[in-house]
Amino acid sequence: MHSPKPQAAPGIPAVPLTIEGSSVLHQMLRFDWTAWRALEAGERNRITSDAERTLQQLERRREGGSALYSMLGHKGDLMLVHFRNSFDELKSAELQLSALGLWDFVAFDDSYLSVVELGLYDSSVKTYQSLAERGIAAHTPEWDAAIKEVLERQREAMRERLYPQIPDARYLCFYPMDRKRDEQKNFYTLPIEERQRQMHEHGMVGRRYAGEVKQIITGSIGFDDWEWGVDLFGDDPLVFKRLIYEMRFDQVSAVYALFGSFYVGLRVPAARIASVL
Amino acid sequence: MHSPKPQAAPGIPAVPLTIEGSSVLHQMLRFDWTAWRALEAGERNRITSDAERTLQQLERRREGGSALYSMLGHKGDLMLVHFRNSFDELKSAELQLSALGLWDFVAFDDSYLSVVELGLYDSSVKTYQSLAERGIAAHTPEWDAAIKEVLERQREAMRERLYPQIPDARYLCFYPMDRKRDEQKNFYTLPIEERQRQMHEHGMVGRRYAGEVKQIITGSIGFDDWEWGVDLFGDDPLVFKRLIYEMRFDQVSAVYALFGSFYVGLRVPAARIASVL
Amino acid sequence: MHSPKPQAAPGIPAVPLTIEGSSVLHQMLRFDWTAWRALEAGERNRITSDAERTLQQLERRREGGSALYSMLGHKGDLMLVHFRNSFDELKSAELQLSALGLWDFVAFDDSYLSVVELGLYDSSVKTYQSLAERGIAAHTPEWDAAIKEVLERQREAMRERLYPQIPDARYLCFYPMDRKRDEQKNFYTLPIEERQRQMHEHGMVGRRYAGEVKQIITGSIGFDDWEWGVDLFGDDPLVFKRLIYEMRFDQVSAVYALFGSFYVGLRVPAARIASVL
Amino acid sequence: MHSPKPQAAPGIPAVPLTIEGSSVLHQMLRFDWTAWRALEAGERNRITSDAERTLQQLERRREGGSALYSMLGHKGDLMLVHFRNSFDELKSAELQLSALGLWDFVAFDDSYLSVVELGLYDSSVKTYQSLAERGIAAHTPEWDAAIKEVLERQREAMRERLYPQIPDARYLCFYPMDRKRDEQKNFYTLPIEERQRQMHEHGMVGRRYAGEVKQIITGSIGFDDWEWGVDLFGDDPLVFKRLIYEMRFDQVSAVYALFGSFYVGLRVPAARIASVL
Amino acid sequence: MHSPKPQAAPGIPAVPLTIEGSSVLHQMLRFDWTAWRALEAGERNRITSDAERTLQQLERRREGGSALYSMLGHKGDLMLVHFRNSFDELKSAELQLSALGLWDFVAFDDSYLSVVELGLYDSSVKTYQSLAERGIAAHTPEWDAAIKEVLERQREAMRERLYPQIPDARYLCFYPMDRKRDEQKNFYTLPIEERQRQMHEHGMVGRRYAGEVKQIITGSIGFDDWEWGVDLFGDDPLVFKRLIYEMRFDQVSAVYALFGSFYVGLRVPAARIASVL
Repeated sequence: MHSPKPQAAPGIPAVPLTIEGSSVLHQMLRFDWTAWRALEAGERNRITSDAERTLQQLERRREGGSALYSMLGHKGDLMLVHFRNSFDELKSAELQLSALGLWDFVAFDDSYLSVVELGLYDSSVKTYQSLAERGIAAHTPEWDAAIKEVLERQREAMRERLYPQIPDARYLCFYPMDRKRDEQKNFYTLPIEERQRQMHEHGMVGRRYAGEVKQIITGSIGFDDWEWGVDLFGDDPLVFKRLIYEMRFDQVSAVYALFGSFYVGLRVPAARIASVL
Repeated sequence: MHSPKPQAAPGIPAVPLTIEGSSVLHQMLRFDWTAWRALEAGERNRITSDAERTLQQLERRREGGSALYSMLGHKGDLMLVHFRNSFDELKSAELQLSALGLWDFVAFDDSYLSVVELGLYDSSVKTYQSLAERGIAAHTPEWDAAIKEVLERQREAMRERLYPQIPDARYLCFYPMDRKRDEQKNFYTLPIEERQRQMHEHGMVGRRYAGEVKQIITGSIGFDDWEWGVDLFGDDPLVFKRLIYEMRFDQVSAVYALFGSFYVGLRVPAARIASVL
Repeated sequence: MHSPKPQAAPGIPAVPLTIEGSSVLHQMLRFDWTAWRALEAGERNRITSDAERTLQQLERRREGGSALYSMLGHKGDLMLVHFRNSFDELKSAELQLSALGLWDFVAFDDSYLSVVELGLYDSSVKTYQSLAERGIAAHTPEWDAAIKEVLERQREAMRERLYPQIPDARYLCFYPMDRKRDEQKNFYTLPIEERQRQMHEHGMVGRRYAGEVKQIITGSIGFDDWEWGVDLFGDDPLVFKRLIYEMRFDQVSAVYALFGSFYVGLRVPAARIASVL
Repeated sequence: MHSPKPQAAPGIPAVPLTIEGSSVLHQMLRFDWTAWRALEAGERNRITSDAERTLQQLERRREGGSALYSMLGHKGDLMLVHFRNSFDELKSAELQLSALGLWDFVAFDDSYLSVVELGLYDSSVKTYQSLAERGIAAHTPEWDAAIKEVLERQREAMRERLYPQIPDARYLCFYPMDRKRDEQKNFYTLPIEERQRQMHEHGMVGRRYAGEVKQIITGSIGFDDWEWGVDLFGDDPLVFKRLIYEMRFDQVSAVYALFGSFYVGLRVPAARIASVL
Repeated sequence: MHSPKPQAAPGIPAVPLTIEGSSVLHQMLRFDWTAWRALEAGERNRITSDAERTLQQLERRREGGSALYSMLGHKGDLMLVHFRNSFDELKSAELQLSALGLWDFVAFDDSYLSVVELGLYDSSVKTYQSLAERGIAAHTPEWDAAIKEVLERQREAMRERLYPQIPDARYLCFYPMDRKRDEQKNFYTLPIEERQRQMHEHGMVGRRYAGEVKQIITGSIGFDDWEWGVDLFGDDPLVFKRLIYEMRFDQVSAVYALFGSFYVGLRVPAARIASVL
């Protein structure tokens, strides 16, 4: 009746090191076309110009930025993606937009709150093993200092991936996902070395698509209802399908991945917002 | 506690080859009858004529096209199905329709975004085995070239099935589906040869219904919330039930199929839209 | 990792023979009382009389018919049940009703689309075994002819049960259901002889309630989101509970049944519709 | 692949005897505060007085009755509980209330339809065993007569518990529940003697809280979406938590119970309805 | 087919002792921006000032209090958290707020009702063992008296943790959770000593974050749809993610935790409510 304790090499923590960057908010918006078209053309133009101006400011921010997408299907008319340096800045973006006249015609169907995350499985296993070999027990001050140093080094090295600009690609595919914790197939009770192996295999597939798709992984444990959010940026949406289908046969996806809804949008530069209103 | 790695003949990839064609959007619409009937008859006629004219254009496109269905039950009043050459063209169709006066009375209850897909299980296994026998490792340039050639040859041979016209049948049945990834019954960890065998058995059933039902399979991994969408076109809806019930006893359906909602509609030629408004 | 193939006597198909009759639509309606009571009494009377007249026509049809129920609880105010000879006729009923003034105050909370179905498990096993003994392989022309003859004979013999009149009973209980396809308990992979045995045992319980409850089974594979819909008609609703509770201990229900929502209504003859508005 | 037949002593039916009493309807209501406050004070007073008068009549019924609760949280503003002698009387209560002016400001978020039920596990096992020992087979006329006599005797003895008055307690906790029918843990395939043992153990816990909580069990198989509804009445809501938490460790709850939403309300005598509007 | 009885040392009850404190209500609110902005500025100011005044009173209560948060994402615009001495006081807070003019623009998307709870696993096991060793059987008067004394002593010692002030931290993360009762992994059938061990391990992780995050656990069995609600208060939201991610590898979380939605908000002192309206 007892569940076996997760097993790993003694002294090796189960939790992989991760580093975090930009705070990210996805907003899926439905538009009230009936009310919008009931407005006089002049009023519509004025409201559109206001929205265009504000969105251009958000789009052109030096650090982080925002991007607008026109969505396919009924899950929303528009999607806004915001990359910022903090949740406070995300809240500012939300409030700045909610002051727009255009927001009188907008309802929120969904959203996703997360932070750019790099999971350092390779580095974690190497570091944990090395510290264990040196006889340094986990969570001792010496161990904490060594870990802190690894994290700082990685944050420095990965700075650009942690605080990315939103790619200019024509298409975006966004979806949230979990790792399963089922009765027999539980990712969180696998030894860290096994998880590292599976994540590595998974990464190898992604690498073959690197030229066609730009992928940004964000972590959302404690922030939203799934554990991770995945953004794929590319000019040919078929590549999204091929990449995700191929990955579905990886062990870590085939056995341990749970997926939420998939959202697909076409990039609309703020300067062309009138074309979708 | 470790999950066994998917097993297949060594050197045989797990991912079947697939080829894709038309981009497809299903839109399920609810109609606001109360507001519609509150209009004066002349206004209703004008709006209906506008909608009829636009829908006829979409219906008569040379490549791809659109079709209107009147749905049975509460899942929607109307269903529109669009076949196009790209997601950009689907977005254009959405925007063109949203400019119609009729759209002031329309709300979207559901939709489905996918692309026509042919899964080449037989061809994949044959090709993978032949390349393995010739000692050509997966994902090497030589392997990639051989695969590319197979795909191009198949795309050419299957051109008409990849870019189909919407059949004229009186009834449509649409439903999305997944293959299960449960703890013990996981389609994605079966060896490709076993999946090929099951899909072949499944196809044999479909073939017996070929004269009565036209089936179009679309893939939606990365595009929507299920892995595939299935459209059945036929003049007698009872045949949909018999076909799907018989297939439910196939191993690949009995054990591995998960189904979403089923949508049934009667074809309404654009010229007769007034009869359902 | 391979799933065992469903086992049955060799040459015995897994799919039971079924015969179908009336097309059936259940509509669950919510009524906008606030808007309704805001009307002048004269207008309400006029709209009620119109609805009464139309519903009486539908109620009195020679073949099939419609019945109105006043629902208990929040799942809807009214339920309409339509029995017709085809889906086209069901669509006509929907459109005829949607032209009523009363329909301005109606919203659809749910619906169910299905056809009267008799599953011929006993006859299937006998026929399949007899054909196998005679060495006639499944799906050969000779086999097809023999099956066709059985189906036609049964359709003739069961004509009244396939095209029933809606019983006059005061209460209706409607619910949809599935047979489970779980990892270990999968109805669709049981041998047909075992399914026959379980369905027979199940039928024996129903028979003890025959005098108090009239049951109509409809099939909805390919038409709606569950596999079957069950209508129970009776004058004492307690009998619904006793029957369904007793059946829940049958093997086919205890182990293999999945139930949707239960809807309970009191019959309202069209002539008395004013009493519930 | 076959599922083992439920096992019990031979000749012992699996279904426990149950007796039923009052018909019960729970209604969870959301109130439109904005529209309500837009009324003039005089109009609000008039509508409130009407509602108070009607609710007082319902509250004071000799047999059965109704009670109003002010709910905590977003699941509703008010909850009404009706105990009646039949579903017809429940429908009358619904219609009588829907004629109130106050009902223009009310929407129904949820409801529950059930009947007071006493499950006679102890008596069932004893009776079934005694009849089996006397060689009387189940469902023979002699068996039916013996069972009928047991049921009538119990109905007489339990009359007050079958047709209870709504307790005056300040707090109500209502929740629906099921017994699990999972692949390995299936309450409905346990032998009746084992179910009796578990229910007895469960009842022993309840008994220790008898002075602080009054519990009424209603059955809803065939009437609503769960198998049972549980009402707990008490003056200290903490006792609800302690009782239910302690019971969660009972075998029948720990292993076999599935719970729906929990609703908590404070009793509002009809005469004080103005205090919550 | 029988489920094994939960096993523990003989005479040791399965239920851990718990003590309860403040009654807690979380309210997630959506704001109708369109209607709000349609008001004249003077009217908006008047309504805002009224709301500010009332919220300040609630915020400054000596015992318990209320706090306002501006939420990130679409799950709500605002979240209110109320700590009180009873459910009656929570109801008063609800009614006091519903009288505000601001409440005309508010709809409730979600809520959570619970009480501050401290689970005394260590103390329970020690007490139960000691009583068992002294031969005192559970639920005897002597046993009851001993338990009562332990509970009273703990309530006294933990008084401040049972009736906490809402921390001033800039960020709040709230989520509900359950312990799993699956077929093979069932927390409620583990021996209490094993649950104690797992909870202790779990607590050790929390302790390492004590300086950065203040955690308040509330119990909601019998009150709301999950078993517990967790509030994390901190100035850096990244710490929420790190803490919860690390805990997800604990046995009690990895194997036995089920999580609901996660809600994240930024504290808005009542005096600054105008900044988010």
